Amino acid sequence: MLTDAKEMAPYLSDWRGRYHGAACAVVRPGTTQEVAAVVRLCAAAGVPMVPQGGNTGLCGGATPDGGGRAVVLSLGRLDRVRAVDADNNTIMIEAGCTLAGLQQAAIAADRFFPLSLASEGSCTVGGNLSTNAGGVQVLRYGNMRELTLGLEAVLPDGRIWNGLRGLRKDNTGYDLKQLFIGAEGTLGFITAAVLKLFPAIRQRATAWVAVPDPGAAVRLLGMMRAVCSDRVTAFELIGGTALGLVLQHIPGARPPLQAGGEWSVLVELSDSACNAELDTELERALTLASEQGLVGDAVVAGNLAQAEALWALRENISEAQRIEGISIKHDIAIPVSRIPAFLERARAALQHAWPDVRIVAFGHIGDGNLHYNLSKPAAADNRKFISRTPEVNRIVHDLVAGFDGSISAEHGLGQLKRDELLRYKSVVEMDMMRAVKQALDPHGLMNPGKVLAPVRPESRGDAET
Amino acid sequence: MLTDAKEMAPYLSDWRGRYHGAACAVVRPGTTQEVAAVVRLCAAAGVPMVPQGGNTGLCGGATPDGGGRAVVLSLGRLDRVRAVDADNNTIMIEAGCTLAGLQQAAIAADRFFPLSLASEGSCTVGGNLSTNAGGVQVLRYGNMRELTLGLEAVLPDGRIWNGLRGLRKDNTGYDLKQLFIGAEGTLGFITAAVLKLFPAIRQRATAWVAVPDPGAAVRLLGMMRAVCSDRVTAFELIGGTALGLVLQHIPGARPPLQAGGEWSVLVELSDSACNAELDTELERALTLASEQGLVGDAVVAGNLAQAEALWALRENISEAQRIEGISIKHDIAIPVSRIPAFLERARAALQHAWPDVRIVAFGHIGDGNLHYNLSKPAAADNRKFISRTPEVNRIVHDLVAGFDGSISAEHGLGQLKRDELLRYKSVVEMDMMRAVKQALDPHGLMNPGKVLAPVRPESRGDAET
Repeated sequence: MLTDAKEMAPYLSDWRGRYHGAACAVVRPGTTQEVAAVVRLCAAAGVPMVPQGGNTGLCGGATPDGGGRAVVLSLGRLDRVRAVDADNNTIMIEAGCTLAGLQQAAIAADRFFPLSLASEGSCTVGGNLSTNAGGVQVLRYGNMRELTLGLEAVLPDGRIWNGLRGLRKDNTGYDLKQLFIGAEGTLGFITAAVLKLFPAIRQRATAWVAVPDPGAAVRLLGMMRAVCSDRVTAFELIGGTALGLVLQHIPGARPPLQAGGEWSVLVELSDSACNAELDTELERALTLASEQGLVGDAVVAGNLAQAEALWALRENISEAQRIEGISIKHDIAIPVSRIPAFLERARAALQHAWPDVRIVAFGHIGDGNLHYNLSKPAAADNRKFISRTPEVNRIVHDLVAGFDGSISAEHGLGQLKRDELLRYKSVVEMDMMRAVKQALDPHGLMNPGKVLAPVRPESRGDAET
Repeated sequence: MLTDAKEMAPYLSDWRGRYHGAACAVVRPGTTQEVAAVVRLCAAAGVPMVPQGGNTGLCGGATPDGGGRAVVLSLGRLDRVRAVDADNNTIMIEAGCTLAGLQQAAIAADRFFPLSLASEGSCTVGGNLSTNAGGVQVLRYGNMRELTLGLEAVLPDGRIWNGLRGLRKDNTGYDLKQLFIGAEGTLGFITAAVLKLFPAIRQRATAWVAVPDPGAAVRLLGMMRAVCSDRVTAFELIGGTALGLVLQHIPGARPPLQAGGEWSVLVELSDSACNAELDTELERALTLASEQGLVGDAVVAGNLAQAEALWALRENISEAQRIEGISIKHDIAIPVSRIPAFLERARAALQHAWPDVRIVAFGHIGDGNLHYNLSKPAAADNRKFISRTPEVNRIVHDLVAGFDGSISAEHGLGQLKRDELLRYKSVVEMDMMRAVKQALDPHGLMNPGKVLAPVRPESRGDAET
């Protein structure tokens, strides 16, 4: 248990420095039983609790409020791999393991765990579960939710729920694990999980492809999935401005194509079979696509180093943006079929309001998930532009809603988007969410103020008497 | 609305004739708004409501109790395909569509909907969702839950929740659709859904394979998944007794192999690519498996008719059992790795209690799901044996629980397994289930007595005043 202000400090701000909170203590339990004991004590005393994994979240979901009454439960010491069952293709692992540690444990069993994120060296399994993390391979393997078979969680009253089942089929009542996945710790704290493993990947093929426009990218995706089936494991759209920033700011970055254009796609095939001829398959598919006018220039990586160089162009977009300066970011999802129209409409609306707006659009178009980031070219103008974030959000998010999309595809709500949500969710849906919260956490002590506004202080007072 | 006893009769018994109930009326709404209007009226009058789709369930989940106060809502008239979005690989469809109708709508859009069940000509999408249906392709595509992106449901107070999103990534709060999937209509009535589609399947390869024992089948599964990846779409284990009954009772059924043994596997590869050489791939994988001692004799279907004949051996097991006579059936799941030990232990325990017990074991071993059915050879003995079902269930289900398995893999609970569940679920888990039920359906009017025991009559009285 930490109570010293200096020792607690790293746990009280998010890593981007956007949120700063206060706590009466930071506790670091090492077992599920210790988590349960802390929760029982806090529940009895009416003390709010904030769970924290790697503290890499983007929405302030793991940062306490400024009141100073909360206890932060840092779960990093719950980091055991409890069991690997290779024949069942499952791993039982504790919430505090890093995602990279989980990936390594799978590799050690000659298996593959597909979730992969920029923060995988620090982010933890509990955070991945609590935010239903996504990443670049959702197209093929699904989100963290689809990768989960069983959970163990500590409930708001301090009881432990053991739902650590490793079954593909189980229809014995309500699927309670779904309540905790993506709930950002507001209904209970996940302490361990049983996750799916997959056969080890033996071969990959990677290509950078110029496409005439986003519509061609969507048609290329459909064609690739038909021709290459589930071997299509990543399909990323990259706008010209995004690529330009990488080439400008990242040392060693080189243009992937002689004749690139405004839009590119990074596509990857993978297979667990050693004898798959994925390079040939990818070249054949791209030739076919080229004949249909879906593809301009294209390059298939000839070796691992070339593949990594292509991926680095994609993965360094965020870093290049950071070097370029602050921007207004959106993590949105749209039905795949409607992305081209959304991009066109959003560009028109933003350019109408700010003629020199700069749009950095890229993302997991295979899942309909775009990172849609905005700034202005000149530093001074940009600072003024940033101050108008609410206006920009209104244009982008209203359009997203009009296209039946989501204002948070893979980052969750936390504190950042909690109130923005009220504009887009129906009264019926908010009522259902509140009913679930009230049923499982009636005193509102579990990560209060995240996802949903805090319950009335009166009702929290019950637990304090 | 039907109130005539003769007209209502088909809606008041399940198709196996195990459950018989009573109702004050059967209503057949044709739109979501009509469902909502009926629910509002029933809620106001405190009348219990029982939803029904194709009435093909195996656990009595769609049959009202004998009280006669209930209204049955038969949703078969909600049968429109609202939209197909081929580029987004989604279909928006109403709850009363048959599964076969859904599969056909996918084919018409040059897409594939993978869920496939024996009752697909009659069972409906709403029932598939409410029981989280499984079938033979879960190994590759998941259960109905994994195939669902969005839902529309009528809540217990008659309000309509529109959650018809067609997004692969959406993390804006609790994933409320998960509450309704697999809840057997106890939390609200599903009226429509957005479901995933997949590229049309262009090629299949099918083989019947003799394996030395279930352990070899599990190792063969692991090897096939590594070598053939997701092209493995079905992997069924068939015991010798099951095959024997098919050969005995089904006209035209022929032994698939010259030298079969006690255990067989039916394996299918499929791919959306036209030029996949799946027969060659399957033969190569089986040769490799044979070198490792995992496979005895094997036959790869040379054409569609041969493939269909092999599948008919598998699909006619239930019919052959029906002809042979009544048996005690179990729909169970076990971690794949533990199936061989379970089969051994269960056989020993049952033979100890009944030396001449006959075990018909088969099922989706790729998902850990076994249909484990028991009878005795002589008709008179068997009738006596059936009367001891509770004793038999105790042996089988206690063993399943000991192997961390499930007593209902894909058929749900309904009335049949509701009370059996109490023996195997923890108090914590039952409390959570009841809390969810109480939060969403406080008056207990939605399909009462299914999944959970009915709430106290007192609390139901509230709505009647």
